[in-house]
Amino acid sequence: MSELRRDPIGGRWVIVDTDHPNRPKDYDIESPAWREGVCPFCYGNESQTPPEIIAIREPGTAANTPGWQARVVSNKYPALQIEGDLDRSGLGIYDMSNGIGAHEVIIDSPYHQKDIPDLLDQEVENIFSLSCVRSLDLMRDKRFKYVMIFKNYGPAAGASLAHPHTQLIALPMVPKSVKEEINGAHNYFEYRDRCIFCDVIRQETQEKERIVLENKYFLAFCPFVSRFPFEIWVIPKKHNGYFCHMPQEEVPALASMVKELISKVKKIFGSLCYNFIIHSAPINGDGEPEGYHWHLEFMPKLTKVAGFEWGTGFYLVPTPPELAAKFLREENTS
Amino acid sequence: MSELRRDPIGGRWVIVDTDHPNRPKDYDIESPAWREGVCPFCYGNESQTPPEIIAIREPGTAANTPGWQARVVSNKYPALQIEGDLDRSGLGIYDMSNGIGAHEVIIDSPYHQKDIPDLLDQEVENIFSLSCVRSLDLMRDKRFKYVMIFKNYGPAAGASLAHPHTQLIALPMVPKSVKEEINGAHNYFEYRDRCIFCDVIRQETQEKERIVLENKYFLAFCPFVSRFPFEIWVIPKKHNGYFCHMPQEEVPALASMVKELISKVKKIFGSLCYNFIIHSAPINGDGEPEGYHWHLEFMPKLTKVAGFEWGTGFYLVPTPPELAAKFLREENTS
Repeated sequence: MSELRRDPIGGRWVIVDTDHPNRPKDYDIESPAWREGVCPFCYGNESQTPPEIIAIREPGTAANTPGWQARVVSNKYPALQIEGDLDRSGLGIYDMSNGIGAHEVIIDSPYHQKDIPDLLDQEVENIFSLSCVRSLDLMRDKRFKYVMIFKNYGPAAGASLAHPHTQLIALPMVPKSVKEEINGAHNYFEYRDRCIFCDVIRQETQEKERIVLENKYFLAFCPFVSRFPFEIWVIPKKHNGYFCHMPQEEVPALASMVKELISKVKKIFGSLCYNFIIHSAPINGDGEPEGYHWHLEFMPKLTKVAGFEWGTGFYLVPTPPELAAKFLREENTS
Repeated sequence: MSELRRDPIGGRWVIVDTDHPNRPKDYDIESPAWREGVCPFCYGNESQTPPEIIAIREPGTAANTPGWQARVVSNKYPALQIEGDLDRSGLGIYDMSNGIGAHEVIIDSPYHQKDIPDLLDQEVENIFSLSCVRSLDLMRDKRFKYVMIFKNYGPAAGASLAHPHTQLIALPMVPKSVKEEINGAHNYFEYRDRCIFCDVIRQETQEKERIVLENKYFLAFCPFVSRFPFEIWVIPKKHNGYFCHMPQEEVPALASMVKELISKVKKIFGSLCYNFIIHSAPINGDGEPEGYHWHLEFMPKLTKVAGFEWGTGFYLVPTPPELAAKFLREENTS
């Protein structure tokens, strides 16, 4: 019989197929397929992007020229625009607002073909360092209530350009899913005076069966209430609500763990599309929300979301996280 | 500038690209691609499915033999199983339950290649009539709190078999997304003593620009807060919380409207994958929830859900619903 599991933070249920679990070979993977054309993110094509906001580059090289290791630019087709004041209005029973926000792109590296596992550790660190720097800067804009950092890798994950990149979106309101997660964590904190994520770390460390990797500062595990097969969370062991407040010494540990995780997943499945999302506390509210703990959620694209999931928010998980963690632990990437 | 819109029921925000909206030709559509093999849903292969629960068939023909127009069978690989008592338990901070429920399949017609637009009106009615009959029966099982009816058409929509079919899942708890919708509707009712869906019908009928089709009993429109481009809702004009309490005379009106809608969408995009989901009130609770109104949500698969949507529940909608409704209205299917 399958198993129903309830997310203690947001209250979401999932159905885990513990009886006839899918093994890696049971998945149909869509491999990346791209349109041809000149890549605006490639080395030497700097003039084809909007102007550089910040970059990690060789001393003495000018902005928007070669000499860089990673660049941040505005999204050429932004979902939200930085200029203007937030203007909320009603339309009968509907509420709306103009699309104020920021939408930036981190070009991970100069290399068109290199995904995270192919980069040097230092190059992966660049991605997270620049994410931190840009978050801190966007936080200073009081119009913004949330900064979301995420990566779409491959067409099935929603990427529209092949050259690996990471995105930041600053939003003028706290999105619903984030609010639910914050509220769930806050309610738990009110009840027990403990951070639920710290309790998750404690329980996972004790049970061990869902852990994939551990280093001095981070834990990577397949969450008990995974929504997707081979979903993996990376969480700092020390309580901290904001990604961008991560101590400098933790950045290399995060980068090397994320690199190793994606290497493991790609060793199992070959090339595949994936998303990761950094969940961090909302900004410019009334102080830090109690009991919230930043983390990164990694989701390989192995299944299609179908009518049932859209209608219910109930996810069907064909590989139990315990089994996924076992496959991931056993995959040797060194 | 894009426009942010807030769902008055669930509180979800979407970002609508009103500036540079996508037109139909701008979408990359995945057309269905299937594995080969004998189809268990085809006429003559009745022995290859689990036993028939109910069917619409010629008088005098035996169950599980030819002579049928539509059949309902148990799902061969059910997400949930009907036998046993619900058994909830805790595991440290996690909650879980065994996978009690029902998972049935309606084989829409004997024809492997016929999607809804290719069927006779009477054949489309069969699908909705059988959905009603099965819902009513499953409601009698007091262990179940929700019955979800949905359709996955095509591989990109999550269908695992090519032969068109519709699914019913009975769940032992009200799923999170449904609960949110119910609570949102209830809060509105508490505040205004009116059904929010009835108010939506009123406003849409007045504004007209998002309406696609209307007949005596139903309205079809692209919702103001669409999450997906070319999303369409079909809603009964007369207030009614339960799909399966639909008056008999409304079934043909629903069937012909859904057939016309899908015909329009397929005329615009050619073959494409889609989901539809019937949203109905929970069952076996403390009476009917106040201010809830059943409806069908139709979602063509034109975009990929990416990291941003997964992380925030905030959707990026490249075609405003007003424009989608215009394209749909102008498409002539007669």
